[in-house]
Amino acid sequence: MPLVVDRGAGISLVVQVADGIRRAIESGALRGGDVLPSTRTLAERVGVSRGTVVAAFDQLHGEGWLVADQGATRVDPGLADHPVPGRATRPTPSTSPVSGRRTGAPVADLRPGQPDVSGLVDPTWRAAWREAAAGAGTQHPPQGSPALRAALAEHVRVARGTAVDPDAVVVTAGVREGLQLVLTTLSRRAGRPLRVVVEDPGYPALRRVVAALGHEVRPVPVDGDGLSVELLDHEPAADVVLVTPGHQYPLGGAMPVARRLALVAWARAHGAVVVEDDYDGELRFTGEPVPALAALDRRGGEDDGVVVTLGSFAKVLAPGIGVGHALVPDGLRPDVLALRGDLGSPVPATVQDALAHYLDAGALRRRTGRMRRRYRARRDLAVAALSDLPEARLRPMDGGLHGVVELLGADAAREHAVVEAAARAGVLVAGMGDYWADPGGLVVSADLPRHGLVIGLGSPHLERGLRRLRPVLGGVGSPAAR
Amino acid sequence: MPLVVDRGAGISLVVQVADGIRRAIESGALRGGDVLPSTRTLAERVGVSRGTVVAAFDQLHGEGWLVADQGATRVDPGLADHPVPGRATRPTPSTSPVSGRRTGAPVADLRPGQPDVSGLVDPTWRAAWREAAAGAGTQHPPQGSPALRAALAEHVRVARGTAVDPDAVVVTAGVREGLQLVLTTLSRRAGRPLRVVVEDPGYPALRRVVAALGHEVRPVPVDGDGLSVELLDHEPAADVVLVTPGHQYPLGGAMPVARRLALVAWARAHGAVVVEDDYDGELRFTGEPVPALAALDRRGGEDDGVVVTLGSFAKVLAPGIGVGHALVPDGLRPDVLALRGDLGSPVPATVQDALAHYLDAGALRRRTGRMRRRYRARRDLAVAALSDLPEARLRPMDGGLHGVVELLGADAAREHAVVEAAARAGVLVAGMGDYWADPGGLVVSADLPRHGLVIGLGSPHLERGLRRLRPVLGGVGSPAAR
Repeated sequence: MPLVVDRGAGISLVVQVADGIRRAIESGALRGGDVLPSTRTLAERVGVSRGTVVAAFDQLHGEGWLVADQGATRVDPGLADHPVPGRATRPTPSTSPVSGRRTGAPVADLRPGQPDVSGLVDPTWRAAWREAAAGAGTQHPPQGSPALRAALAEHVRVARGTAVDPDAVVVTAGVREGLQLVLTTLSRRAGRPLRVVVEDPGYPALRRVVAALGHEVRPVPVDGDGLSVELLDHEPAADVVLVTPGHQYPLGGAMPVARRLALVAWARAHGAVVVEDDYDGELRFTGEPVPALAALDRRGGEDDGVVVTLGSFAKVLAPGIGVGHALVPDGLRPDVLALRGDLGSPVPATVQDALAHYLDAGALRRRTGRMRRRYRARRDLAVAALSDLPEARLRPMDGGLHGVVELLGADAAREHAVVEAAARAGVLVAGMGDYWADPGGLVVSADLPRHGLVIGLGSPHLERGLRRLRPVLGGVGSPAAR
Repeated sequence: MPLVVDRGAGISLVVQVADGIRRAIESGALRGGDVLPSTRTLAERVGVSRGTVVAAFDQLHGEGWLVADQGATRVDPGLADHPVPGRATRPTPSTSPVSGRRTGAPVADLRPGQPDVSGLVDPTWRAAWREAAAGAGTQHPPQGSPALRAALAEHVRVARGTAVDPDAVVVTAGVREGLQLVLTTLSRRAGRPLRVVVEDPGYPALRRVVAALGHEVRPVPVDGDGLSVELLDHEPAADVVLVTPGHQYPLGGAMPVARRLALVAWARAHGAVVVEDDYDGELRFTGEPVPALAALDRRGGEDDGVVVTLGSFAKVLAPGIGVGHALVPDGLRPDVLALRGDLGSPVPATVQDALAHYLDAGALRRRTGRMRRRYRARRDLAVAALSDLPEARLRPMDGGLHGVVELLGADAAREHAVVEAAARAGVLVAGMGDYWADPGGLVVSADLPRHGLVIGLGSPHLERGLRRLRPVLGGVGSPAAR
């Protein structure tokens, strides 16, 4: 790997080393899975301090070019599957096009929902699957394997501050499957379709589950602190309130304790169930993760809870892992488990066993820590690239895998034009229009962005994508903060 | 392993050798996973012909004591996890009791639904999971991984005579999950709960899915040829007819072609959908497997099909595998896939990848052949043990993993008493009462058993269980056919 730095170039040595490695990957000189020299060796070879190389590696780890694997630093093996722009390579199948006018392969797919999975496949991961495959004949109870439920209870206790008994944990095939289970249980109990309040803007995939099962979707606006609880009283009585209190989706921000208490009190008073989508509660960058809403709900200890917490491992591990959990309060549990027994569990025994092994080895905790650091670095990249633009404002990002860029003074047509222009520049992003359930609805707070972009931070091509996105958003040249 | 035969005992040498090996396992002299001597070595050591040892091994393979593994014959490693009666060992957790009056651990759990999973974990199985775990980050489309769908289409073409395009295959989390998907799709289309005809007697687990989702269950009696199609005209118009044409559950027997044609014609005429639960169609002992109903439905080629076929790998592989398939005709597919997209697939990517590797390696075909031979041997054991009883009649078993013992002239109370007596003798079996949706319903054909036992053939303790069951059913001594 020829790597030359120029001390007279007026560019930091860290940036030069990182750029050199990036170019080597883009040119094909380094390929996915290749092992890099140690930081000490590389520092000697290039003639810089070891700290410079460590900092450059950290940067490239954060961007997703490099992974740590069995004590070595490697080029992310996943890059072998992705077209690296600039590298002469065979044509790759096109991703789903955002615009028919777009030409060529995208430089970076920054649509949200795709986490950084690099480094997931390590010896612990392999061992967990190996052990699980050896016992494939065993079927688990519909509620889930006792070993996995115990490991999950411990996980949510440590990571999310929610003390639950393993008996309260139901193993699900993910957040959407958990939501189906809860909605069908409550609907059977009520003998009719449910009225389900959702956040507006909110997570479209969960709203679609509600509608797909024939229930009524009632969008209620959020403000900077999450769902506006007082607006619930203006609505017909809801059966279910679906919220993201840990990190409002997509705007970010955690629901303050006062509002959490108000929401739980409202639900108790109205006989409603609060479903908490705890989709990335453990991935906070600043301070400790906010405890789950359920932690507060159960604090009394006497009263039966009204909060069901849904979580999964789609973000911290991989979207294809296909396992999640539902924490179900006592009063609801018999009905949920009866339905689970009738329908059968969709979660394969082998996957439950593999995840139980992985959790028991402490690997999830370690990976969460790594992901938190990595996404913090990625957040910093986004802040550096997009924070001084005249017509766009990046909302504060204190956690999670995506950011929201508000388009100042824009309307829906302008948002659409920006998404299209980004696509032409090779960068796929989502417009905020997709997140509104009620496009004509009331905007509660003037400081909430109505139109903007939602940008995922998981892409291995984040840095390049942000660089291309900047001029589309009205910025010129390189961001000052680099 | 001390093994002595007595040529003057009047007992066949094969039986003596097999008994000796069984006793060695029961006493703990041979443990799960232990490798047995080769047939040649053992024959020399015991002083019998090699053919005698081969026949004894075959017998013990069929009963589930031995497995073939990497060229060697081993004691089933799964036996390490089961209490082997007669062996002095630590107390094991009790299984769910059938009767409170029962004392001690069961000698054999012959309840249906538990297949023989011995020999499943072989090098091909391990390799499939190893490869799958290495690519865990990849998420598949909601319809399922293209590689798995192609492998499944080839599987049903070869194993079930159904030529389907991979685009017609939807990967499910099993038969019950596939049924949910179809029912919810049709219910959305109709805008109301469905009227679903089920076979009576029939498979209780699928009936419960129908009821759990709020649809109406309409039991229609079967006769010796399966569902009585002419009785459908006496019913209010059904939206869905749920059948097991390949092997009626639990009575056995395949639906003749004339009746299949009548059923499809009836469904076309009434705008109904036939859901075919193809639960063990490939496990026929006599002749070739009967083609799936869908094969006949699609034969015209012009008309759009009305048959959805559901299958899984719960029986041939393991109940915990958690993957099945739905073959969906063209007209229904857009709606099924739209719902699948809204709800998301519950099937983990890693499991889809592992199964695709396993199928691509030809391992499923080989295992199906092995299982067919093994269950044929087990069927022969049941026939030998239960075919000459005065008050009970074993129904013909031409395939599958269970048999039905008709209790001649019995009523429900007598059936219950027999199930209880079997449990007291250490043998768990199911009574036929569990299989009737409509216990007071019309019995169409006088030669159909109304009361009896359903006996699973998958237990490693089948032979011992049958021996204990014989006196409970009024037989004396050892069966003649041994």
